[in-house]
Amino acid sequence: MLNKVLTHLDENMEKSLERLFSLLRFQSISTDPAYKDECRQAADWLVEDLKSIGFEASRRDTPGHPMVVGHHPGPSDDCLHVLFYGHYDVQPVDPLNLWEGDPFSPSLKERDGEQVICARGASDDKGQLMTFIEACRAFKKETGQLPIKVTVLFEGEEESGSSSLVPFLKENRDELKADYALVCDTAMWNTDTPSVCIALRGILGEEVTITAANRDLHSGAFGGVAANPIHILTKILAGLHDDNGRITLPGFYDGVEETPPHILQSWNELNCTVENFLGPIGLSVPVGEKGRSILELVWARPTAEINGISGGYEGEGIKTVIASQANAKVSFRLVHKQDPEKIRQAFRHYVNSLVPSDCSVKFKEHGGSSAIQIPYDSPFIEAAREALSQEWSNPAVLDAMGGSIPVVGDFQKILEMESVLVGFALYNDRIHSPNEKYNLKSFHKGQRSWARILAAFANRRING
Amino acid sequence: MLNKVLTHLDENMEKSLERLFSLLRFQSISTDPAYKDECRQAADWLVEDLKSIGFEASRRDTPGHPMVVGHHPGPSDDCLHVLFYGHYDVQPVDPLNLWEGDPFSPSLKERDGEQVICARGASDDKGQLMTFIEACRAFKKETGQLPIKVTVLFEGEEESGSSSLVPFLKENRDELKADYALVCDTAMWNTDTPSVCIALRGILGEEVTITAANRDLHSGAFGGVAANPIHILTKILAGLHDDNGRITLPGFYDGVEETPPHILQSWNELNCTVENFLGPIGLSVPVGEKGRSILELVWARPTAEINGISGGYEGEGIKTVIASQANAKVSFRLVHKQDPEKIRQAFRHYVNSLVPSDCSVKFKEHGGSSAIQIPYDSPFIEAAREALSQEWSNPAVLDAMGGSIPVVGDFQKILEMESVLVGFALYNDRIHSPNEKYNLKSFHKGQRSWARILAAFANRRING
Repeated sequence: MLNKVLTHLDENMEKSLERLFSLLRFQSISTDPAYKDECRQAADWLVEDLKSIGFEASRRDTPGHPMVVGHHPGPSDDCLHVLFYGHYDVQPVDPLNLWEGDPFSPSLKERDGEQVICARGASDDKGQLMTFIEACRAFKKETGQLPIKVTVLFEGEEESGSSSLVPFLKENRDELKADYALVCDTAMWNTDTPSVCIALRGILGEEVTITAANRDLHSGAFGGVAANPIHILTKILAGLHDDNGRITLPGFYDGVEETPPHILQSWNELNCTVENFLGPIGLSVPVGEKGRSILELVWARPTAEINGISGGYEGEGIKTVIASQANAKVSFRLVHKQDPEKIRQAFRHYVNSLVPSDCSVKFKEHGGSSAIQIPYDSPFIEAAREALSQEWSNPAVLDAMGGSIPVVGDFQKILEMESVLVGFALYNDRIHSPNEKYNLKSFHKGQRSWARILAAFANRRING
Repeated sequence: MLNKVLTHLDENMEKSLERLFSLLRFQSISTDPAYKDECRQAADWLVEDLKSIGFEASRRDTPGHPMVVGHHPGPSDDCLHVLFYGHYDVQPVDPLNLWEGDPFSPSLKERDGEQVICARGASDDKGQLMTFIEACRAFKKETGQLPIKVTVLFEGEEESGSSSLVPFLKENRDELKADYALVCDTAMWNTDTPSVCIALRGILGEEVTITAANRDLHSGAFGGVAANPIHILTKILAGLHDDNGRITLPGFYDGVEETPPHILQSWNELNCTVENFLGPIGLSVPVGEKGRSILELVWARPTAEINGISGGYEGEGIKTVIASQANAKVSFRLVHKQDPEKIRQAFRHYVNSLVPSDCSVKFKEHGGSSAIQIPYDSPFIEAAREALSQEWSNPAVLDAMGGSIPVVGDFQKILEMESVLVGFALYNDRIHSPNEKYNLKSFHKGQRSWARILAAFANRRING
């Protein structure tokens, strides 16, 4: 039976690619209100596609962008029930001039000898969520049913703080609760080595705006006397790290645990060197805390990054102005038991302490979520690992992830449900950057992987 | 004779205002190549206006924006010859949303009980240069001649580095050389107190672009390991000042002289307090070197200001990105004998020392000029001071200026000619900012002041 499904997927690649291209054409940039309508259209498209497979599906409006929810029964009433999660919204595309083509006109290209799908969202996360939909479609076509009961939840605000997610999960708890969640928003270790992710950093986003004078000033008339908000901001931001790459906020490292030596050892065996991690992006000197491996830094240590800064004249040439305002966007990646709210307060206290008495500061909150640690001993983690190992040339590894997927924590807290994180993105997919791509191989073998995992989960329930 | 000229100016205010409005309508923003044609049109308009007074005038094209040169003979071959300088280009208008009206649709408004001319360039410098043209026009209409020989030079690149000025002065040395230069680009001490400016700070502009990775990165995948160019830039910029407000570049203070006590004393008598200097712009705590008065800081001490900074995501919301590049525009105000080129090298050396070995930095030069000190004992400074004192309710003061007017140094070096700096701008004119204005009183009494100064200079030559 599984073989028929896998063959169906092989034979229908062209059609599945057409469907993905349709979804990629929606400019569903969730952080920018200008694209609200495009987000809604992407949601509607997903509803229709789910219905075509036999899901009972609907667009569910929220104060932000809509959710898509679909339900499909399993072969029996007492079969396993999974909730599959993905997101249809995408990151902004600036700077647009660095894209080789229109970010929302998807195309198949050859890059470094691989066939790749080029578009914003190809990898994060439209291509990924479609691998699961295609696996379901193939099961339905070949067997007339799905091997387990499946609920899907597609979010439209993952790239912009997910403000509607928690209220939606709370309001629809009974409808969405399943035995396990499947989340497809992560990467493989490399093109031949799939992975199941067992740890995720949390994130905390803050925006700071410093206001000095009540208007822009001529730097000749006022320079040297009037406060310059860019000076204040650079001093604040420059003080966030010490010379050893550690973050200076008091209490920042509370709740950070040392990673067990056998885990660090397994990561060391992955042979992630400075050369092969930084080389492809044109760098050679790791920053961050001294004395820790690359993988420990990105998977198990917290960070503070300035994601954007602006103030004063940014056009061509120079303008001798002292700006009235300066702005920065800062995000912190959190691990283990770090408390996002405590760190937010520590950050704000630190900033306030450096703002002169005649200047003012405004903060804007851009989300906050704790880190996640998935239990190692779950039978479904093991089932997924085995299924993936059958599909790909190398066995699957248990890895961790530098980025955050807050929904996994929300599933834990609100739906009391653990997640299995499996994804087929690659580290060179340029997600969040110009020229994002998703390997055709990821799209194809990703579909086959989900077919195998669904079959394995069905067996596991019967056997286990 | 002078009285007839002054009466003519009083009776023709409306027409002179119409002419100024015509000039203000040109969007002559010199720093932005998009406005090249508007700059040329402003120059052509000035040529025609000068011709209408009887000047032999022409537009003189340069590799940048054109110069306007006009010549008018005096009453005799051996009479005094002055070169009048002004500039017709203006600053950019961003942020446009803070303007009460279109910056290039001039209008007369009442503000704080004063009639003011509102438009970009009203004060800096179109309104100012027109005060002189109107004085010449009135002399010509009422007496059939000008009291001294006059050459005018209007520049179109003053707000963007004046790159064509020095070559133009060198190529046209014989044509432009006069006994004295008159420069109208400065401010009065207050609405009732005119001034002659005797010191000008120099300026040095630098743009710094730091490049780290060869593309924008996801802060989750690379954060904590890959260099962030905004971090590097903020560290560099935050280190430019020490805790006492002094600039840290080695050798920066070479050539800075202490201002003589009697000059400081005369400035102290102007009663410029922290309250009345910073209060109107919403500030109360002076920055800059400790233990020096406001006027000493802006008139006789050097500064370093960050005029603009940019990098990463600057749109609405947040984007978890590590930018590939970050950029800052920095300018230094120089005094006395500071050497701009030595300071440029010190700045670049300092920046280079803080850029990690796998990142790169590019510098862009935005002009550099030494400070100017005008001799106190010139008879023409004294003549101007006396003429101004007759026009305004308070006697004229000898002051200094925080901004730089590099042309004064170029006149010294290339044309071996000292300048008399007289202007009618006010410190609240919002030059370089949204809602720039020029008081109608400045425009009116400015014209009358130039008529008096021209008459006084004619007498001075005969008597002196």
